[in-house]
Amino acid sequence: MKLHSFFRSSAAYRVRIALAVKGLAYETVAHHLRKEEQRRPEYRALNPQALVPTLEDGGHVLTQSLAIIEYLEEAYPETPRLLPADPAGRAVVRAMSQAIACDIHPLNNLRVLAYMKSAMGQSQEATDVWYRHWIGEGFAALEELAKRNSRGSSHCFGDAVTMADACLVPQMYNARRFQTDLAPYPTLVAISDSLERLPPFAAASPEGQPDAE
Amino acid sequence: MKLHSFFRSSAAYRVRIALAVKGLAYETVAHHLRKEEQRRPEYRALNPQALVPTLEDGGHVLTQSLAIIEYLEEAYPETPRLLPADPAGRAVVRAMSQAIACDIHPLNNLRVLAYMKSAMGQSQEATDVWYRHWIGEGFAALEELAKRNSRGSSHCFGDAVTMADACLVPQMYNARRFQTDLAPYPTLVAISDSLERLPPFAAASPEGQPDAE
Repeated sequence: MKLHSFFRSSAAYRVRIALAVKGLAYETVAHHLRKEEQRRPEYRALNPQALVPTLEDGGHVLTQSLAIIEYLEEAYPETPRLLPADPAGRAVVRAMSQAIACDIHPLNNLRVLAYMKSAMGQSQEATDVWYRHWIGEGFAALEELAKRNSRGSSHCFGDAVTMADACLVPQMYNARRFQTDLAPYPTLVAISDSLERLPPFAAASPEGQPDAE
Repeated sequence: MKLHSFFRSSAAYRVRIALAVKGLAYETVAHHLRKEEQRRPEYRALNPQALVPTLEDGGHVLTQSLAIIEYLEEAYPETPRLLPADPAGRAVVRAMSQAIACDIHPLNNLRVLAYMKSAMGQSQEATDVWYRHWIGEGFAALEELAKRNSRGSSHCFGDAVTMADACLVPQMYNARRFQTDLAPYPTLVAISDSLERLPPFAAASPEGQPDAE
């Protein structure tokens, strides 16, 4: 497998965690987002959205981090599962994942921040406030969901690693990078701190990537 | 089943389409987003994100539109399927759905537009341009993906209705409401026009809802 990635992309980081938890080997193809390498025609042919990650698995070209994780779950059923067995539990894990992947992260993407600076004349400070605002909105809801579903464990849901954990840790990394006040989210911080110490999460961290700066 | 909805919410519209395609009956509980009814404590207890939709099914409380659709797919396997059978095909349908549900719609949400007007002093015109910009970015990629995957049919993927179709039609409705230039996306327009005429899509339309204005 080939993973088109950027060390700091939190969507790519989610997939790296999933691959590591499942013990699936892959080669990294790095695309430097600040240098807009993901906009090259060769990459756009693979992924018309010109976003990372993209996973190549044999002849299949997979895009969108959560779709890739669901694919790994279905195509490699013998590997550790990232979704619980029952439909209602799976729905909660997916909803927690999407609360990050739909309602926090896309608002804080590099292309969005760039648009607000160039087309809307916003300062670095204003976009930093925006960045933290959407983390705050999302984390406030996730804190409540984690309290309900982690049942005192060190995971977002139940007592095993799920797709929601693969979404939380990269979002927490971004929150810290932008100096977000994390005091209101003790459950999320405790879960993330514990997860970050697990070997698959450590292996997937931005600093551990071949293209890390 | 009870669907917490708002007639114009495109995330709720997706779930209404899925329920109609599957022939599952439900009661609508309307929350007027412009009046911030979704922020009431009773609703927030159900859905800590204070967003629509939420689906109540027996004792289960489901949130996030795509998670709800996946739940319906798993909990009611005897109903028409919205995902193909093979993992690679499912991954493409999910990726197309997420290209809308993650990378277009959250950027154009009411709460986001409100933030840009209040905290960033942006005009209605500037937020309209922003709105259309993200539809354009997303639709350009989706046009290419639809060309590759619809294979000349009237659906986003293959020759049956999928979750991607349930995402496309509400997004097209929003694009038209904001006078987006649709000339560059003939494949998407043709697919959406054809889908909109199908009875389940017509039944799910904003105008057909009990809370329509």
